[in-house]
Amino acid sequence: MEEQRTTYTDKIGLPPGSLVYIGKHRTDKVTISETDYSTDHYHENNLNQISDCTSWDKSDSVTVVSVIGVHDTSIIEAAGEQFGLDPMILEDIVNTHSRSKLEEFDDYLFLPMKILEVELNTNEINTEHVSLILGKNGVILFQESEFKILDPFKERVRKGKGIVRQRKADYIFYRLIDTFVDNYFIVTEHLFDRLEKLEEKILQNPSENVNEEIYELKKKIAFVKRTISPLRESISNIIKTDSDLISASTQNYFRDVYDHVIHLTETIDSQRETINDFLNLYMSSISNKMNEVMKVLTIFAAIFIPLTFIAGIYGTNFDYVPELHYKNGYFVMWGVMIVVAGVMLYYFKKNKWF
Amino acid sequence: MEEQRTTYTDKIGLPPGSLVYIGKHRTDKVTISETDYSTDHYHENNLNQISDCTSWDKSDSVTVVSVIGVHDTSIIEAAGEQFGLDPMILEDIVNTHSRSKLEEFDDYLFLPMKILEVELNTNEINTEHVSLILGKNGVILFQESEFKILDPFKERVRKGKGIVRQRKADYIFYRLIDTFVDNYFIVTEHLFDRLEKLEEKILQNPSENVNEEIYELKKKIAFVKRTISPLRESISNIIKTDSDLISASTQNYFRDVYDHVIHLTETIDSQRETINDFLNLYMSSISNKMNEVMKVLTIFAAIFIPLTFIAGIYGTNFDYVPELHYKNGYFVMWGVMIVVAGVMLYYFKKNKWF
Amino acid sequence: MEEQRTTYTDKIGLPPGSLVYIGKHRTDKVTISETDYSTDHYHENNLNQISDCTSWDKSDSVTVVSVIGVHDTSIIEAAGEQFGLDPMILEDIVNTHSRSKLEEFDDYLFLPMKILEVELNTNEINTEHVSLILGKNGVILFQESEFKILDPFKERVRKGKGIVRQRKADYIFYRLIDTFVDNYFIVTEHLFDRLEKLEEKILQNPSENVNEEIYELKKKIAFVKRTISPLRESISNIIKTDSDLISASTQNYFRDVYDHVIHLTETIDSQRETINDFLNLYMSSISNKMNEVMKVLTIFAAIFIPLTFIAGIYGTNFDYVPELHYKNGYFVMWGVMIVVAGVMLYYFKKNKWF
Amino acid sequence: MEEQRTTYTDKIGLPPGSLVYIGKHRTDKVTISETDYSTDHYHENNLNQISDCTSWDKSDSVTVVSVIGVHDTSIIEAAGEQFGLDPMILEDIVNTHSRSKLEEFDDYLFLPMKILEVELNTNEINTEHVSLILGKNGVILFQESEFKILDPFKERVRKGKGIVRQRKADYIFYRLIDTFVDNYFIVTEHLFDRLEKLEEKILQNPSENVNEEIYELKKKIAFVKRTISPLRESISNIIKTDSDLISASTQNYFRDVYDHVIHLTETIDSQRETINDFLNLYMSSISNKMNEVMKVLTIFAAIFIPLTFIAGIYGTNFDYVPELHYKNGYFVMWGVMIVVAGVMLYYFKKNKWF
Amino acid sequence: MEEQRTTYTDKIGLPPGSLVYIGKHRTDKVTISETDYSTDHYHENNLNQISDCTSWDKSDSVTVVSVIGVHDTSIIEAAGEQFGLDPMILEDIVNTHSRSKLEEFDDYLFLPMKILEVELNTNEINTEHVSLILGKNGVILFQESEFKILDPFKERVRKGKGIVRQRKADYIFYRLIDTFVDNYFIVTEHLFDRLEKLEEKILQNPSENVNEEIYELKKKIAFVKRTISPLRESISNIIKTDSDLISASTQNYFRDVYDHVIHLTETIDSQRETINDFLNLYMSSISNKMNEVMKVLTIFAAIFIPLTFIAGIYGTNFDYVPELHYKNGYFVMWGVMIVVAGVMLYYFKKNKWF
Repeated sequence: MEEQRTTYTDKIGLPPGSLVYIGKHRTDKVTISETDYSTDHYHENNLNQISDCTSWDKSDSVTVVSVIGVHDTSIIEAAGEQFGLDPMILEDIVNTHSRSKLEEFDDYLFLPMKILEVELNTNEINTEHVSLILGKNGVILFQESEFKILDPFKERVRKGKGIVRQRKADYIFYRLIDTFVDNYFIVTEHLFDRLEKLEEKILQNPSENVNEEIYELKKKIAFVKRTISPLRESISNIIKTDSDLISASTQNYFRDVYDHVIHLTETIDSQRETINDFLNLYMSSISNKMNEVMKVLTIFAAIFIPLTFIAGIYGTNFDYVPELHYKNGYFVMWGVMIVVAGVMLYYFKKNKWF
Repeated sequence: MEEQRTTYTDKIGLPPGSLVYIGKHRTDKVTISETDYSTDHYHENNLNQISDCTSWDKSDSVTVVSVIGVHDTSIIEAAGEQFGLDPMILEDIVNTHSRSKLEEFDDYLFLPMKILEVELNTNEINTEHVSLILGKNGVILFQESEFKILDPFKERVRKGKGIVRQRKADYIFYRLIDTFVDNYFIVTEHLFDRLEKLEEKILQNPSENVNEEIYELKKKIAFVKRTISPLRESISNIIKTDSDLISASTQNYFRDVYDHVIHLTETIDSQRETINDFLNLYMSSISNKMNEVMKVLTIFAAIFIPLTFIAGIYGTNFDYVPELHYKNGYFVMWGVMIVVAGVMLYYFKKNKWF
Repeated sequence: MEEQRTTYTDKIGLPPGSLVYIGKHRTDKVTISETDYSTDHYHENNLNQISDCTSWDKSDSVTVVSVIGVHDTSIIEAAGEQFGLDPMILEDIVNTHSRSKLEEFDDYLFLPMKILEVELNTNEINTEHVSLILGKNGVILFQESEFKILDPFKERVRKGKGIVRQRKADYIFYRLIDTFVDNYFIVTEHLFDRLEKLEEKILQNPSENVNEEIYELKKKIAFVKRTISPLRESISNIIKTDSDLISASTQNYFRDVYDHVIHLTETIDSQRETINDFLNLYMSSISNKMNEVMKVLTIFAAIFIPLTFIAGIYGTNFDYVPELHYKNGYFVMWGVMIVVAGVMLYYFKKNKWF
Repeated sequence: MEEQRTTYTDKIGLPPGSLVYIGKHRTDKVTISETDYSTDHYHENNLNQISDCTSWDKSDSVTVVSVIGVHDTSIIEAAGEQFGLDPMILEDIVNTHSRSKLEEFDDYLFLPMKILEVELNTNEINTEHVSLILGKNGVILFQESEFKILDPFKERVRKGKGIVRQRKADYIFYRLIDTFVDNYFIVTEHLFDRLEKLEEKILQNPSENVNEEIYELKKKIAFVKRTISPLRESISNIIKTDSDLISASTQNYFRDVYDHVIHLTETIDSQRETINDFLNLYMSSISNKMNEVMKVLTIFAAIFIPLTFIAGIYGTNFDYVPELHYKNGYFVMWGVMIVVAGVMLYYFKKNKWF
Repeated sequence: MEEQRTTYTDKIGLPPGSLVYIGKHRTDKVTISETDYSTDHYHENNLNQISDCTSWDKSDSVTVVSVIGVHDTSIIEAAGEQFGLDPMILEDIVNTHSRSKLEEFDDYLFLPMKILEVELNTNEINTEHVSLILGKNGVILFQESEFKILDPFKERVRKGKGIVRQRKADYIFYRLIDTFVDNYFIVTEHLFDRLEKLEEKILQNPSENVNEEIYELKKKIAFVKRTISPLRESISNIIKTDSDLISASTQNYFRDVYDHVIHLTETIDSQRETINDFLNLYMSSISNKMNEVMKVLTIFAAIFIPLTFIAGIYGTNFDYVPELHYKNGYFVMWGVMIVVAGVMLYYFKKNKWF
């Protein structure tokens, strides 16, 4: 979180629709590609500039325009002009902190959302801001950087597997969102695995820095919840929309996506509950341990302090200490000490101190 | 939870309706059976394959097809074809993690739900995913594995007891769900018994691993809550549906099931509250115990440390320590010590330390 | 809670409407009585069997049938036949765990609810399940056992006091419910008294088992809340019903009952808050006490341990310890000790340890 | 809270509308006064009995009848008869525990509410139950006892200041409620001042009985919240009512009162949050202090216990302890002790124990 | 918070619409300025008194009247007369504690809100009360004191940049609110930075006064939440209003502001969660530290107390202590001591105490 970033502060006072990139500092080149397909053809092109898009208007095929990199606002502006997008939309595309929502226009739908990816080495959860625009004959996809999770799906489209090539743009719009949502399950399962490991650790060896691990994981779970929860309303709005860009059959598919989002939300809520239980469990373990330590201390102190006192008595140098001259005085002292220690031990045993 | 399982990860990128079994790894053979009955006849057949079902279309009798085992997706696909089921439905049948819901189609209703069973030896609560499909003349029941709780009910149908043989498919649909819901009460009563035992343990002997027991039971209660709560909406939707697959009189019965689900939900919520109270009670008991231990330590230390100091004084080897040569100096020392100890004890007594 | 009881487990697999008594084990005889009155007459009869009821159909008087004891399901079944009650209703009459609700039928209304009674010797709060049925010309009242709280009201009716003898069945239905609800105030006032006593105890002498008392009272308050809260919806439904069994003027009276139920709910919620505050207060008192104990220990240890060390030094038997042979060495040692102790005491005083 | 009071218990079994005073025991005489005014006249009379009210029916002036003391139920009954009030209303007037609500009748509106007054010497918050009745030409005000907060307002009316003399009864009804609500701000500001003082105390010197102060203040805040919150709905109902007793312009004024009530509710909620934060802050301060105390103890113990042990070794009386006879043995012992103590101190310093 | 302020107390009993300034005591002179612009002209005037406003009625230009300072109620009253404002509105302008809301009148809209500013030296968050009035041809802006955050925006208008000069009054109304809302992001980012620093501090060195820092920051976050949250409803009401003072296109812009307010609310809620997590983390760290300290103490005590006891035994002066005369008795004692210490260390090591 200490990397360079652009923040809201840079936007203050600018007129609405001013494009200011908000997010991690990036310098990599933006790549633009266009995929055009129908039942019987499939083309892929890398474009130099957004105005090279050619096939968006052809009504007999589906065109997917993909822009990788949203930090170069001039390209986003060009895209806005090319496809006639509202300036407010462009602002949401370049603001990688913006929440998911559904914005409906006459000609297109706009849905920004997040992709989550687990970095396996560090257990960090990275977020990518993607923006989807569904037009009549195509979809435009803006993403922060290249990511792999769409690859298997792209491959299927390229090879003409499944029914995707026979469907309209709304179907590919659905398939993209569905793939992103499916990917969330990987994150919740990753969190689930970490919770299981942490539970074992707390139960077996609640060492001193477990509380920091609990805290770290809690922070991650809260982050994932914040990322996923606005999507619930977005998808719900797609199901309820009366825009003719989405066919009834595709809306049915979105009902399934909605079920998944609900399931995810419930899973994360239950994970939040679990991590809070961990905290309670850990705190009570710590209290128990302290009790244990205190008992050990008290048992030692309560047994040996009186005994040392007795020995101290007979270490005094008074002229006349009668016991010192008793026959077997030393052994009588030992006897007394053993009785005292025994009584103490009996008392502690009776009170179940050990 | 460490057993082999298939997870969502395996599904990413696959088209909607792709059948991937999600759940515990299983290899046992799937069994398919068909029961056909009306007021005056009753047949039971074990089938080799799903396409052997014969009586589904006969409108004058009720047919219950039961598929035990959902891990063989080819059989589920065959069932989908045989009965004309939506691919999305099939997906929910083989995903044993999916939530309860009601899906309404023109020809059938689909309701997946969970069965809970307490394993008495281990106190583990097992969950089984079942899917019910209500068609015009019958019910299809998919379940993960054979379970016993339907046996008494089956026996009643076989012997023609009760009114079930005089009713339509919607009635058997209701009776199955009712039986599953009734079974939840066994689970909540099991939890209630465990709570009672745990309460006694906390009140009488809050030993050190009680917090782990509290945690375990809390986890179980949360699990049962998560399992039962989505059913509330499913049943509520059955009551509100205008599908003509469910007669008004059967909807009335479902009102009763709904009452039970509400009652269960409230019971579990109150159990959650109870277990949280346990945690507070346990934590305060631990604090009390520590106070107790500290008091014992402090009483011993505060009494004997000054006494040992006095003895130490007269154990010094100075050339001239006047008290050492007093007549009865030793006994005076004892006197002083007894007074000191008495004052201490009086102070502690007055402050109600013991 | 360890008494014999019948539970839901006994019902599994039975058809809907199967009458299984759920509640405390009872063997006492069921008594049935009938009271018939109008402005100018008043009759009371004890009946041998439910079918002896005679006056239910007479439209010019109000008949109250009272069945004390619901554990004999055959009598309940007979009542069901006699008055034409739905089997589902009968099930709720014999299930003493069922929640309050309002069920509306064409000919009658059904409202089960709970009576709460404080057993003054043990402070236990007992619950009684009562079921009220309002028909056109009368009311049927099912109750678990005889209870006293209706006696003053019965006496008033018998003597013709008040306007009850001039009113229809809906009025007596209202008066019964009103009396039961008024009785809840006794319970909340009992809880209030116990809270006051407990508060005093915590503030003055937070002894070690106060946490158990807090826990016990919290459990009771939660129990009362669970018992009363479903009634809110029942009464609200009576107010909103368009059944012609309840006249508009009686609905107005129920508005008053509703106010009382809301008041009760708020009172109990505030009592729950109070008991949670007690727990916090208690826990912080315990922490304070422990701090106190630790300070005493530390003051003693920090003062006497160094002094004992000094004495120990001069108790060593080295051939040459110069101080031992100083003139007044012993008194110098005392001087040093007093300075050390003084410095310690000053430090603790400055830091407000005592 | 230990004063004599009448409770709900006394009401059980009585018919609806039975007048039983519920509240603090009082014996002071009830005073009744009548104020009649219009633009050009103003009269004030003290009445002997409620039936002496004369001007209530005159449509060209506004009459305010004020009854101070609601413990004499015979007077309340007389008022009910004189002004034709519903018995249920009378019950709410004499029950000083009843909640605020708005009851609408054809001829009048009834609104009971509470006045809060801070007793500055004891910081106690007293509550007074007042009941307002708005009729066509006047307002009746019932209050438990004489209070001062209306005095400035009465003075203004008497002297004909402001517009009140030109308005109808609904305006004086509004002004009374507005004055009572404004008075709540004094209470919340009093609570705010106490919170500020308590915060300072916790931050500077969390002495042992601060937890009791936190608890006391929390109780007061909860009490104020309970008192004010039902008013929200009452005022909201006045705004929404279509009764022609309230003119549209007066409803507009009530919108302002509603804003104030919302503001008060939010203020109290934030005060509740603050007092909970205090508890956390206090508890963590206590823990910190205990840590501090434990560190002092441990540093003393860890340094002097080993040293005392060393001295003890050379205090033994074995025939042959070589070190005792070394030249400078005593000084070597001191050297060893200083090194041991130094190592200890270094260790504690390094670990930031002091 | 200890500065001089005027409070609600001063208002009690005054008629509605009485102007009493509630807020920080101020004596600085109120400044009034008027800005009038259209596409082709731009004028700025400082006015001596509010009645000097000249251009408010001209329909072909937009006039912004800015009043800096609301503590002089005579000026606010004059403004009320000049622009025909409702007295209730004026009351909200001079009450700097009043909440944000939208009040709709036929001729104008009234929206009070808060500006938040971070004082960088002290990390204090200051609040300014601003009131916006949107009329047909202009906007009136009341603010407590001069502030800088509008400067860049004013500069843009002056130079005719952007589209603001081509738009109507509703657009400048939107731009002002948008600028104030954007400014909130600076505050949440400031809080975010402070949270990050505090997290690091807790994880690395939970010193004793961290709890006070947590408390301070929690208080600030709660304050910001309270300030921002009422705005949600205000903006929502602007979007839903059917007043013709706001054009449809401007309402669209407000949708964007609404998104920002939602985003801010969520951010602050997540910050509240974070600060609560900090508290838990801190408390568990403190418990851990105490455990650590206790272990050190116990290890020292448990090892050296028995050893000192042994030494004490052989320091006694009994006539006959056989071991004292054994050959090598002293060395045997050392041996025993080393074994005892070793056993202890082994025990503590095994139990993972260090």
